[in-house]
Amino acid sequence: MTELLQSGEFERRLRQIGEERYHSRHPFHQRLHEGKLNKGQVQAWVLNRFYYQRSIPLKDAGLMSRAEDPAFRREWINRIIDHDGPAGGEGGIERWLILAEGVGLDRGYVQSLSGLLPATRFAVDAYVRFVRERSLLEAVASSLTELFAPDLHKTRIAALLENYDFANDRTLAYFKKRLDQAPRDVRFGLNYVMSEARTRDQQEAALAAVRFKTDVLWAQLDALYFAYVEPGFIPPGAFVPDDRR
Amino acid sequence: MTELLQSGEFERRLRQIGEERYHSRHPFHQRLHEGKLNKGQVQAWVLNRFYYQRSIPLKDAGLMSRAEDPAFRREWINRIIDHDGPAGGEGGIERWLILAEGVGLDRGYVQSLSGLLPATRFAVDAYVRFVRERSLLEAVASSLTELFAPDLHKTRIAALLENYDFANDRTLAYFKKRLDQAPRDVRFGLNYVMSEARTRDQQEAALAAVRFKTDVLWAQLDALYFAYVEPGFIPPGAFVPDDRR
Repeated sequence: MTELLQSGEFERRLRQIGEERYHSRHPFHQRLHEGKLNKGQVQAWVLNRFYYQRSIPLKDAGLMSRAEDPAFRREWINRIIDHDGPAGGEGGIERWLILAEGVGLDRGYVQSLSGLLPATRFAVDAYVRFVRERSLLEAVASSLTELFAPDLHKTRIAALLENYDFANDRTLAYFKKRLDQAPRDVRFGLNYVMSEARTRDQQEAALAAVRFKTDVLWAQLDALYFAYVEPGFIPPGAFVPDDRR
Repeated sequence: MTELLQSGEFERRLRQIGEERYHSRHPFHQRLHEGKLNKGQVQAWVLNRFYYQRSIPLKDAGLMSRAEDPAFRREWINRIIDHDGPAGGEGGIERWLILAEGVGLDRGYVQSLSGLLPATRFAVDAYVRFVRERSLLEAVASSLTELFAPDLHKTRIAALLENYDFANDRTLAYFKKRLDQAPRDVRFGLNYVMSEARTRDQQEAALAAVRFKTDVLWAQLDALYFAYVEPGFIPPGAFVPDDRR
């Protein structure tokens, strides 16, 4: 590789990945936010995205299992507590299940993971594995898509409230909460990556990790679009909305 | 394998492993508790055991990274918080460092891990890897040596107070705290193993996991005894006490 990027340029390239590749640009999300998805399509999104949500603590525990600095772990552990909740009936996974019930899905069916698109599993599992196996720097870098999440969540909250009956403070609590949590998390992650990427190779590896993560997010929406929007080929065994039965 | 063990018999066999194989029986610990170790030998023990202590959160995060039930994770996460502390300057690792300073070791030297016996690393790393790679049942079972720890810790606190100048409430805080923490942890772990080992093969795997863990603990003391007691062959690069220089 060539010379080390100045920190301003390195951060600019990190953020540019969001502009070019973040899943806010995906046609499935655009339809969602324009109110153009029907109930079954929204259900398919919530159902499949649940697999991502429930896998996040496994991902973060895998990352922590290789973080040798207690101070780092004391910071990162908050992500697990945010998702699992400090007690039953709390936390991000629970808030996602409330959204699932709000769009008319059965909680037990969602938790059973039985209606998932295989491509959802492949993409999410690839992310969990990436974080477990790659360098800690790459693992942390792969979380930096959170740089781009608050804008998406703000847009989403407004768009869902405007366009869908199911949307209210209770069903959208997951996204509202993330508006507070994501900036705190990403500040720590960004500082870590900026200071730990000390060679150009490491900077490039961090950039590649963010691109990898955008692929993980994008691929989930491709699969949803293909199965539930157009051409609408639902794979054997995956969730079938009422209007497609 | 033959038929399932009744739960009483299964628990009896789990506990019997402690009686036969727990490191409370090791000659190094017996000398420690009889006040027969000199300062350098105590330092070697504290220094090497630090590697075990600082690896425990990595082990527990690795276990959590494969625990799919949020309720399980909400329980297990307390072990990480116990060791890392809710904030800097707290927690079991910090309490161990206070013990290290109390026996006259430099905190930075201990944290550098540079004076460890290689056998300490091999044994502890084998434990971390076991927990990451084996079934969740075996991983949890390997923590059940905590069934035997409170008795050892009680004996140790009394014996150290009686025999060593460095021993006081502050330096022994690690062991005192574990008297409260270990019973809570082990109750959860024991219930998990008793209910999740549903076949004789699983029961035998759980018993083997506890035996494996006793090997991990025993091997650390063998290495200490060999290097610092008898014959006293310190491996190249390992900690050399002042009286051996």
